Amino acid sequence: MSDALDTTARGGTAPATAASDLAARAAQLDAADALAGLRERFTLPEGVVYLDGNSLGALPVGVADRVAEVVVHEWGTELIRSWSSGTWWTAPERIGDRIAPLVGAAPGQVVVGDSTSVNLFKALVGAARLAGHGRTELLVDASTFPTDGYIAGSAARLTGLTVVPVDPSDAAARLRERGQDTAVVLLNHVDYRGGRLHDLPGITRAAHAAGAVIVWDLCHSAGAVPVGLDEHGVDLAVGCTYKYLNGGPGSPAYLYIAERHQAAFDSPLPGWNGHAEPFAMTPDYTPAEGAVRGRVGTPDILSMLALEAALDAWDGVDVAAVRAKSLALTDFFLECVAAYVPAGKAEPVTPLPHGERGSQVSLRTENARAVMDELISRGVIGDFRAPDVLRFGFTPLYVGFADAERAARTLGRIFG
Amino acid sequence: MSDALDTTARGGTAPATAASDLAARAAQLDAADALAGLRERFTLPEGVVYLDGNSLGALPVGVADRVAEVVVHEWGTELIRSWSSGTWWTAPERIGDRIAPLVGAAPGQVVVGDSTSVNLFKALVGAARLAGHGRTELLVDASTFPTDGYIAGSAARLTGLTVVPVDPSDAAARLRERGQDTAVVLLNHVDYRGGRLHDLPGITRAAHAAGAVIVWDLCHSAGAVPVGLDEHGVDLAVGCTYKYLNGGPGSPAYLYIAERHQAAFDSPLPGWNGHAEPFAMTPDYTPAEGAVRGRVGTPDILSMLALEAALDAWDGVDVAAVRAKSLALTDFFLECVAAYVPAGKAEPVTPLPHGERGSQVSLRTENARAVMDELISRGVIGDFRAPDVLRFGFTPLYVGFADAERAARTLGRIFG
Repeated sequence: MSDALDTTARGGTAPATAASDLAARAAQLDAADALAGLRERFTLPEGVVYLDGNSLGALPVGVADRVAEVVVHEWGTELIRSWSSGTWWTAPERIGDRIAPLVGAAPGQVVVGDSTSVNLFKALVGAARLAGHGRTELLVDASTFPTDGYIAGSAARLTGLTVVPVDPSDAAARLRERGQDTAVVLLNHVDYRGGRLHDLPGITRAAHAAGAVIVWDLCHSAGAVPVGLDEHGVDLAVGCTYKYLNGGPGSPAYLYIAERHQAAFDSPLPGWNGHAEPFAMTPDYTPAEGAVRGRVGTPDILSMLALEAALDAWDGVDVAAVRAKSLALTDFFLECVAAYVPAGKAEPVTPLPHGERGSQVSLRTENARAVMDELISRGVIGDFRAPDVLRFGFTPLYVGFADAERAARTLGRIFG
Repeated sequence: MSDALDTTARGGTAPATAASDLAARAAQLDAADALAGLRERFTLPEGVVYLDGNSLGALPVGVADRVAEVVVHEWGTELIRSWSSGTWWTAPERIGDRIAPLVGAAPGQVVVGDSTSVNLFKALVGAARLAGHGRTELLVDASTFPTDGYIAGSAARLTGLTVVPVDPSDAAARLRERGQDTAVVLLNHVDYRGGRLHDLPGITRAAHAAGAVIVWDLCHSAGAVPVGLDEHGVDLAVGCTYKYLNGGPGSPAYLYIAERHQAAFDSPLPGWNGHAEPFAMTPDYTPAEGAVRGRVGTPDILSMLALEAALDAWDGVDVAAVRAKSLALTDFFLECVAAYVPAGKAEPVTPLPHGERGSQVSLRTENARAVMDELISRGVIGDFRAPDVLRFGFTPLYVGFADAERAARTLGRIFG
C-alpha cells in the first residue's frame, strides 16, 4: 500500500489533472468492485458521503417495515400472545447465531442483549471466575475506549483483582515476562480513536501460554475485519451492533462465550432469562445450557428485531471480501489525502501497514472540531475525537471509492 | 368492597336476570367513568378484552408514527447527527422525569435504561455500599418474582452479604426485632403472582428505624397504584416500563436514586454514559451528578423513544383517579366472578381488602393453563402462572367495566 502513496503529489497545488485522475481511478475502482451493489441494501440520504458508519451504521432497507410490523401487528394486535407464539422469546440466541459467522464463531456461542458495557461486566467477572484463585491482575488496554476501563475497574474491585494498564503493543511481551499473576486480559481488537488493529491471534496465544483468560472487545472490528474467535481460541468477547453491523442507535450488544467455557461460565448478572427454566419461576438459580446463560432480563424486542432485519444486509456477504475492500478503500483515501491536502495539515494516525489497520482512517489536524464541522456542512460526514483527530470510517457495504475521493478532495479544499 | 360480594349469587345457576343486571351495571359504570375516554389513546384489537396489561401493556396511539420517524428520519437521514443535535443523548434522564410523577418522585431522581434485572443489580450493590460496613444481611422477598432473588444472590455474593428470605408480611416485624444486622432490604411493591400490595410506607419506616437501606421493585405497581417514593422516603427503586406504563415489549426499565443518596451512590456498572464528562474520554471515572450516574452504556434509542411516545397516554392523568378506577374494576370483576362462576371453581388469591390489593385479580383453579387457553380463544386475554393461577390485570387507562363483566361471564361459561 505505502508504495501507492505518491508523496510527490503532496501540497495544496495538486494540479487539476491529479484530481481528475483520482476521480477517474475512483470510477474504475467502483466499476470493478464486486461489493458495489450492496449499497442498494441501505437507505442513505442523497448527496452525502457517510464516513461515520464506524460510529452509527446506515439504515438497511427493510428495517423500517419490519419495525412497523413489530409495533403495529406483533405488539398492537397480537399483544401478549407474541411472547408465547411469536419470534420474541428466542431472539437473543437466534440473532446471536446471525452474528456468529461475522466474528468467526460456530453457532450457540453468541447471545444478544444489553449494552456493550453490561456485557463487558458479565465477561470480566465471568473471566475472573474462570481464571480461578491465586492470580491478581486484570490487564487492560491503556488506550481503550473509556467504558472498558471503567467497567474493568468495577469488575476488578468486586472480584479482588488489580487493574494493570498495558499498551496493547506490549501486551504479548508482558504476558510472556510476567504473566504468572495475570488472571484476565481485556483488549480492543481495533482502537476506537486511531484505528490500530491489534494482534488478536498472537496476544490470545500469549495470554493462554501465561494461563490467563482473554476477553476481546470487537466493537470496532466486527463487520469490517475478520475476527476468527473460534479459530484463534478466544475465551470471551463482546461487541456492539450499531457500527459496522448497522443495528441502529443503541441497538443491543452481544456476548461470545466459547463453547468450552460455557458450562463453567458464572455470570454476575443471573437474570431470569438466563435460567434453565425461566417460566418455572423457581427460587433457585440454575443457569441455562450454552450461551443462553449470558442472557439477563427481558430482551428489548423493538431494537432486537430491528437488528435482526438489519443483518439481512449481510446475506451472502463474505467478511474476507469486505476486508479486502476496506483496505483498498483506506489505501485509496490515504492516497487522495496525500494528493489533495497540503503537506503537514492532516497527518495519518492510523497505521499504514495493512496488518495493523482497522477500517478507519484517523487524521491529526489543528482545529479538528472546526474542520469536521465544515466537512459535515459540505456533505462529508466523519467525526471528531478530542483533542485533534478527524475520524473517517470506511464501511465497505455502502461506501465506495468515489466517496473516498470526494471526502479527501473536500478536505483539501477546506485547507486550500 | 367485600360487602358488595353477593355470595348468595354463587353457583352455576345464576339466573339470566343476574347476568343482564351485571351487564347493565357495567354500562352504567362505564358511562360514569371519567377515565373512559382514555381508551382512545390506545389501539386495541376489535373484539378482545385485554386483561394482560400487567404483563405487556397495550400499544398507545402515536407510538408507531414516532418509531417510524426515529427509524426513517432520525437514523436513516440524519444519521450520526442525531446524537449531537437531536433528542437522543438526554433521553434516559428526560424520560425518567416523565416517569417520576407516576411514582411520586420529584425530577432528577429517575433514569431510564437497561433491564429491570440490571437496574436491580445497580440498586442492590449501590445499596450495600450506602449501608456501609458491619451489617451482614440482605433481606429479600421470599415470594418475589424470581429474577429479584437471583440478582440479589449475585449482589450479596459480590459484596459479602448473606441473603435472608423473608415473607413481606413479616418484614417490618423482623426489622424491628432483628434489624441490627440488616444492610439492605429488597421487596416488591405488588406481588407478581397473587397481586398482593405490600405496605411500602410501613416497611420503609421499619427499615430506616433499623438503619437499613431499602430497595423497592415497582414493576407491578407503577402506573396502577400510587407509590409515593419521595413522600415515604424510599432510598432506591427500580421498575419496568412495559406493563402499566405501556412502553412496548422489553422496553427499558428505570432506576430511582433518592436525591439525598445521589452523591454517594456508587454504581457497580460505571459505564461511560454515567460519567460526568462522557466525551472527554478520560481514563478515570468521575460519576455524573444526579441520577444520571445510574446510566451505563449507550441507550437503546428505538425502544427509549417508543417509550417516550407511549408516556403521552399519561398526559393529564392523575394516578389517584387511576387507583380509584382500578379498585372499582377489580371489585366489580370479583362480584361478577362470584355471580357467574360455580362455587369452588375459581377462588380469589388476591386479597380482598383494598389496602392489600394491587391492580390485578388472581384466581386459583384446576387446569388453569387449559382454562386460560380457552379464555383466550374466546377473546379474553389474561395469563397463566404456574401451577394453578389465572391472572387478570386491570389497566384503568383502557379497560372498562363491560370488559370485566364479559371476562367473568366468559369464565363462567367455560365452567358452566
